[in-house]
Amino acid sequence: MRLDLGYDGSDFAGWASQPGLRTVQGTLEEALGTVLRCPPPRLTVAGRTDSGVHARRQVAHLDLDRDVWRAVCGRIEGTPAQVLVRRLSGVLPSDVVVHAASEAPPGFDARFSPLRRRYAYRVADEPALVDPLHRVAVLRHRVPLDADVMHRAAQPLVGLHDFAAFCKPRPEATTIRTVLALDVERPAEGADAGLVTITIEADAFCHSMVRSIVGALLAVGEGRRPEAWPGELLAAGLRAATVAPAQGLTLEQVVFPSDAELAARAEQTRARRVAPVAPTADDAGGCGCADAER
Amino acid sequence: MRLDLGYDGSDFAGWASQPGLRTVQGTLEEALGTVLRCPPPRLTVAGRTDSGVHARRQVAHLDLDRDVWRAVCGRIEGTPAQVLVRRLSGVLPSDVVVHAASEAPPGFDARFSPLRRRYAYRVADEPALVDPLHRVAVLRHRVPLDADVMHRAAQPLVGLHDFAAFCKPRPEATTIRTVLALDVERPAEGADAGLVTITIEADAFCHSMVRSIVGALLAVGEGRRPEAWPGELLAAGLRAATVAPAQGLTLEQVVFPSDAELAARAEQTRARRVAPVAPTADDAGGCGCADAER
Repeated sequence: MRLDLGYDGSDFAGWASQPGLRTVQGTLEEALGTVLRCPPPRLTVAGRTDSGVHARRQVAHLDLDRDVWRAVCGRIEGTPAQVLVRRLSGVLPSDVVVHAASEAPPGFDARFSPLRRRYAYRVADEPALVDPLHRVAVLRHRVPLDADVMHRAAQPLVGLHDFAAFCKPRPEATTIRTVLALDVERPAEGADAGLVTITIEADAFCHSMVRSIVGALLAVGEGRRPEAWPGELLAAGLRAATVAPAQGLTLEQVVFPSDAELAARAEQTRARRVAPVAPTADDAGGCGCADAER
Repeated sequence: MRLDLGYDGSDFAGWASQPGLRTVQGTLEEALGTVLRCPPPRLTVAGRTDSGVHARRQVAHLDLDRDVWRAVCGRIEGTPAQVLVRRLSGVLPSDVVVHAASEAPPGFDARFSPLRRRYAYRVADEPALVDPLHRVAVLRHRVPLDADVMHRAAQPLVGLHDFAAFCKPRPEATTIRTVLALDVERPAEGADAGLVTITIEADAFCHSMVRSIVGALLAVGEGRRPEAWPGELLAAGLRAATVAPAQGLTLEQVVFPSDAELAARAEQTRARRVAPVAPTADDAGGCGCADAER
């Protein structure tokens, strides 16, 4: 069973369950247990967001016993998936919503199947741009930013690199990733009009990677650091950038391969994890460590 | 001095100051007193929003002593207006923001000068449309709505009418208003994609008018009432519609005449208020009662 969901991360200690803390995973698993009348099932997620980070289009999966399923949805109007979504919406708190549920195609794995993830970081750098109605997911920044310089400064990070400079180190986890796109703009129209919007897409992310990159770009955008600085940090493997606050960060999209390619992709990603040796350029497209993925 | 501002109304007991309650006016006047180092000045506002109602582009004015002004802004970089906005942003809580301050043109009056006000009411009528990041200003509705039927049902309300059916009665206040536009749609794109969005523009609004109209339209959209019902209520002057929750309602825009016409417009509106007799069609364009305006 695949679940598509979104949440306001403000009051969650991140996605991953932690004893005694309010987490998205814990909240959702408990709601599923209530709705399915079974012990809370275990969820696997595409992007393990940190404390305070939001998600607009997150994806998770769970293995569901057919008998449990039938018992719940037997005599109710609608498809089982519709029934599940409707019931969850009655049980979940207002800061997390399941948008859709669907039977997962064979080989589907929310953690190992994705081709890429996309995050957006939003910054309001003057009072005129602040919308109190959207403040939960926009960083309010007191210093004006130069989005063009930030965009240029970001370009050396695009491609296959060792992102050790922007990752919290973890034992036996590779920090090599492929950044597919990294754009800084100030859209003239739409929901983000006027905001400095940093969009980053990669095969996977290591821990705190987006917020470290944003931290470096903010320093450049303010004029505190030169345009070349983020590229220099990357090349030197030097962890010198401040990690930007979680508030501005939202997981926007998780892209999966076609159904036919799901199993192969998951297999490929999993295989990399089993042999946590220093990766070569060839296999760096995957994610080196479960904990390091987002 | 004209102030352009926005707020998340969730935690405010409306715009208007009330003893012992947290209001937008009270919060803003206090912040102005702090920033200007003077007793809190008195604000006049374009739209007196109710408890829980939001504003994206609200307008207020205050009379400011030139000496106070000079004392505050004497040796600081930027125009006085920029200084004021910057200082207010450091003092105000995160649910209210002053976007801009400007010297008001002669004859400007936030309450009496506006030509029209525009409100939007947003509804997410299925879980797939719910964005937890935008939930503060969107009503979550468990029953699917037919936006097309709602739009048709709304059209008899457009024009110059006595809106007694949709107004909380107040002594000596007229309930005649001119609704300039009332549209219900489900935009395919943009920030409101998929949401049922009710936009209403009028010269002025009487108390609870928008939420009563929305209440009637929701009943039609659900199929609980026929399409003709809102028009019938209007014609009969019958207060039968449920007032929709404040959460979905946002003041989106206040339109002022050109500077040259400001004083004349304010004069015209004020004149109507001074003689609170039953208005004729000719003078119903204004607002009958200060308390009844929004």
